Amino acid sequence: MIPYLTSLDAAHLRVAGIEDPWVFGIRDRVRFGELDALNHVNNVVYARWYETLRVIYMEDCGVYDTAGPDPKFVVKTIGLDYKAEVQRGADYINVARTVEMRNTSFTMHYATFVDGRITTTGHAVVVLLNQDNSKRPLPDAMRTLFTTQDGALQA
Amino acid sequence: MIPYLTSLDAAHLRVAGIEDPWVFGIRDRVRFGELDALNHVNNVVYARWYETLRVIYMEDCGVYDTAGPDPKFVVKTIGLDYKAEVQRGADYINVARTVEMRNTSFTMHYATFVDGRITTTGHAVVVLLNQDNSKRPLPDAMRTLFTTQDGALQA
Amino acid sequence: MIPYLTSLDAAHLRVAGIEDPWVFGIRDRVRFGELDALNHVNNVVYARWYETLRVIYMEDCGVYDTAGPDPKFVVKTIGLDYKAEVQRGADYINVARTVEMRNTSFTMHYATFVDGRITTTGHAVVVLLNQDNSKRPLPDAMRTLFTTQDGALQA
Amino acid sequence: MIPYLTSLDAAHLRVAGIEDPWVFGIRDRVRFGELDALNHVNNVVYARWYETLRVIYMEDCGVYDTAGPDPKFVVKTIGLDYKAEVQRGADYINVARTVEMRNTSFTMHYATFVDGRITTTGHAVVVLLNQDNSKRPLPDAMRTLFTTQDGALQA
Repeated sequence: MIPYLTSLDAAHLRVAGIEDPWVFGIRDRVRFGELDALNHVNNVVYARWYETLRVIYMEDCGVYDTAGPDPKFVVKTIGLDYKAEVQRGADYINVARTVEMRNTSFTMHYATFVDGRITTTGHAVVVLLNQDNSKRPLPDAMRTLFTTQDGALQA
Repeated sequence: MIPYLTSLDAAHLRVAGIEDPWVFGIRDRVRFGELDALNHVNNVVYARWYETLRVIYMEDCGVYDTAGPDPKFVVKTIGLDYKAEVQRGADYINVARTVEMRNTSFTMHYATFVDGRITTTGHAVVVLLNQDNSKRPLPDAMRTLFTTQDGALQA
Repeated sequence: MIPYLTSLDAAHLRVAGIEDPWVFGIRDRVRFGELDALNHVNNVVYARWYETLRVIYMEDCGVYDTAGPDPKFVVKTIGLDYKAEVQRGADYINVARTVEMRNTSFTMHYATFVDGRITTTGHAVVVLLNQDNSKRPLPDAMRTLFTTQDGALQA
Repeated sequence: MIPYLTSLDAAHLRVAGIEDPWVFGIRDRVRFGELDALNHVNNVVYARWYETLRVIYMEDCGVYDTAGPDPKFVVKTIGLDYKAEVQRGADYINVARTVEMRNTSFTMHYATFVDGRITTTGHAVVVLLNQDNSKRPLPDAMRTLFTTQDGALQA
């Protein structure tokens, strides 16, 4: 049984039919308040889901821990592609991974799986800043984490 | 013509068919994202509307200005009564007034008008605190403001 | 271990330190998007939580099943009392029960527990309608369910 | 004075310092509930703003009227680029235009202006469907509207 709201690792995801390269996810369930007048999950809600997912990924995978003193993470870009609608009460797994690193930023990919099939994908570019909003190069420990866990590439 | 998103006074409200004792309101319009799967404004959205309204009321009527140094306003209770549903695209006016003052708190009433008729009412009890969360008695200037503007009563 | 997002029964709740008369709940975790500028769970979010909880309660306890053909449930009143703030990432259990029945409506109570202590309580009055919005008396099967499960009283 | 929540045309936008090619916009104001724990407008909120804007654009510019019987508009892709944060209470103008048409879809651009400067941009690809979810070619009247009003190009 795959638990809800607990970080899922590769083993959990494989049981759920979600293949490599995904190794991090969260299982959740559509709530009434996430539906819109078309009676499906509203487009905007996916942006909220991936924000929630990103924060949990960064906490649970230790990204915050590798960021150095008083880091500030700012989202520079997000994108969402809608492939199929998701219905009331649906059980879904949202997955996240970091795919690319640049000097002071990294790119994450997201996807939503319902019954083992992708309904939506997304991406975000996240920039690492100091508290004065100057850019901070990604620390080596963070690069190692992204490479080791997710196979992220240096751009 | 009654403006949107601009504090409305008694004269504006009377033109809109909203009677005494209401003397403060904001005109707005239902957005697509405020509808739920039943294709009407979701119940929870009214709590958001009255939060927005309360903040504008406190700013535009000078409540913050009378609160003394570094005040902290905390909502203790809210209540909402739904009398009629509100539809997509509807034009509405939300009104607010302070009706009662106690030692360190005050009670506000809210209502939503569509085409001159009330569809929803609400209330909130707001407590005034110091930054250390100890209670602060309502300053005299605030009492005078609530009494003069809204006819609020001392409980 | 108390699971997330799965209906919790009395046994689960007792393990979590939540006493009688609560016999239904859902465990969840605060998300980043539920915080407001004061860095705690926003007041309005509790109204959303209790909506989510009410829908799951009605589905999982069989309320919809006892309602007769094409029922329509409409919320008439909600109320919320805030006792303590809830922080980012907090683990919480929301509980629900039906306390009172009238001819065509029933009253539910809600509460949020963090670390075994109540931070917020709420209530809602829900009316049962036919599709033409005429009132429908609560069916006997629904009364039995509310009485047996929650000890609800006839008003 | 530029009105709130009323469709703004080119003349209004020019007065607000927003230049060609923008010819459609809506003025609005940041609400308390749109802020997040970082005390600025939350990233996800822009996706909501542009949804609201898109619906008003399609209604007020007559896009729905040119779509033929029982049209269904589905968002296929959205993207957002964040250039500067927006603060509590800020007054902003969101603008929209259609830039490109394909056989059964069109691409819109969005931007948020605060004090005459762009803080965020976005885009969406919208697909026109029949009620059975088969694709419907954009009617000539819709193409003419997008070309005439916005200078949209055929891809």
